Amino acid sequence: MSGKLAVIGTGPGNPDQTTPEAAAAIAAASVFFGYGPYLDRLSLRPDQRRVASDNREELARAREALATAAGGEHVCVVSGGDPGVFAMAAAICEAIEAGPPAWRALDLSIVPGVTAMLAVAARAGAPLGHDFCAISLSDNLKPWPLIEARLRAVAGAGLVIALYNPISKARPWQLGTAFAILREVLPWNTPVIFGRAAGRPDEAIAVASLAEADAGRADMATCVIIGSPETRLIERPGLAPLVYSPRSAGSVS
Amino acid sequence: MSGKLAVIGTGPGNPDQTTPEAAAAIAAASVFFGYGPYLDRLSLRPDQRRVASDNREELARAREALATAAGGEHVCVVSGGDPGVFAMAAAICEAIEAGPPAWRALDLSIVPGVTAMLAVAARAGAPLGHDFCAISLSDNLKPWPLIEARLRAVAGAGLVIALYNPISKARPWQLGTAFAILREVLPWNTPVIFGRAAGRPDEAIAVASLAEADAGRADMATCVIIGSPETRLIERPGLAPLVYSPRSAGSVS
Repeated sequence: MSGKLAVIGTGPGNPDQTTPEAAAAIAAASVFFGYGPYLDRLSLRPDQRRVASDNREELARAREALATAAGGEHVCVVSGGDPGVFAMAAAICEAIEAGPPAWRALDLSIVPGVTAMLAVAARAGAPLGHDFCAISLSDNLKPWPLIEARLRAVAGAGLVIALYNPISKARPWQLGTAFAILREVLPWNTPVIFGRAAGRPDEAIAVASLAEADAGRADMATCVIIGSPETRLIERPGLAPLVYSPRSAGSVS
Repeated sequence: MSGKLAVIGTGPGNPDQTTPEAAAAIAAASVFFGYGPYLDRLSLRPDQRRVASDNREELARAREALATAAGGEHVCVVSGGDPGVFAMAAAICEAIEAGPPAWRALDLSIVPGVTAMLAVAARAGAPLGHDFCAISLSDNLKPWPLIEARLRAVAGAGLVIALYNPISKARPWQLGTAFAILREVLPWNTPVIFGRAAGRPDEAIAVASLAEADAGRADMATCVIIGSPETRLIERPGLAPLVYSPRSAGSVS
């Protein structure tokens, strides 16, 4: 029972954005569980074993990782970004709560990382410079009407919105519907940032107004940030514009 | 005009949580601007100059950093955590927008980091495992009634809430009032996490119910996370409890 379980985040994907703490956790582990593309980012040694699974099998993966750690192995569960933001740390906790008592006694560590919205925001300026929220647009695990209600509530309250899991083959219409809802609440010139693969070689950052925001620009690797009514855009000759949310906010709407 | 400006985040304070990208930006710069305690975290060389200022002088600091970079120096502006979350990146953008045209042409890079709520969440389990928001409790730059309205809106919508700048000598009552407002909206057994100095030697993580949450536990170095009605607590014999927000959410309230 000397097993250990580390749940780590690699950051957005550029090794320069992986913390030394996460790198040390990777070096110390013997078995790795995660979504295949995330495991592909690691440079594992021949003595380190990888167990890849699909990205919709989080709970089964969590159970297998916990059982392996309880068996005495040094296990690393790998998320992209931060493991606590729409990623494996919650699945591990769910599995612990429903699992055998021995899993509660495991040596568990959760290692934070740079989550996608922070990497995208840094490329665009400072869109998260004031109050903001992160909402998953996936209705696999929550009903769509709840997502709609949350979008209306946070946009109406003046928060910047970062959308995770904006679109997939199985969820093609949700992002377009989200934009339509937000057009009912927010000014149409509100800046929208499509941040794809921030920090990686295939990075693509695009800015559009809410009026012109096209859901077709997003894919599974995209984090979409929608400004608040206070969010501003600074044009820069020969450079991409800066999008930022001022530190001060006005009156109660 | 070969000046450069990098706006970086050191992460929560433990050097193991500073990304290699931020470390490289620190190594490459010649002049450093920031709040004194954040600059104290850096191990600067004798040829690197530091300009410390108070934490309520962000805009003046931003202007001075921009002017210095425009003068040809390689400048680094230092935030704790992530520079885009209630930190210097927004102040830099504000100064650029209001400043001379030359500032828009500067070689500007913003380097993301691990922000406090991610570090605190990792220590506690996975409280940010579902939809969440980050709200600054400082009413220096926005009216208090707006903060109250936002707290009611996000708690009512079922989001987990991370509070930045919860308390200071000049703002002693706001956190207690925030708890009182949230007790009107949320179940009194909702978990509240007081995360102080996560990852640093003086780290202190405490969990209380919303009913018993005492604002006196927080100080300027604390990030307070308040669960949603879905957030759960797992007791662990001999270990701190795990607090997590399940990936699935129920019906529309």
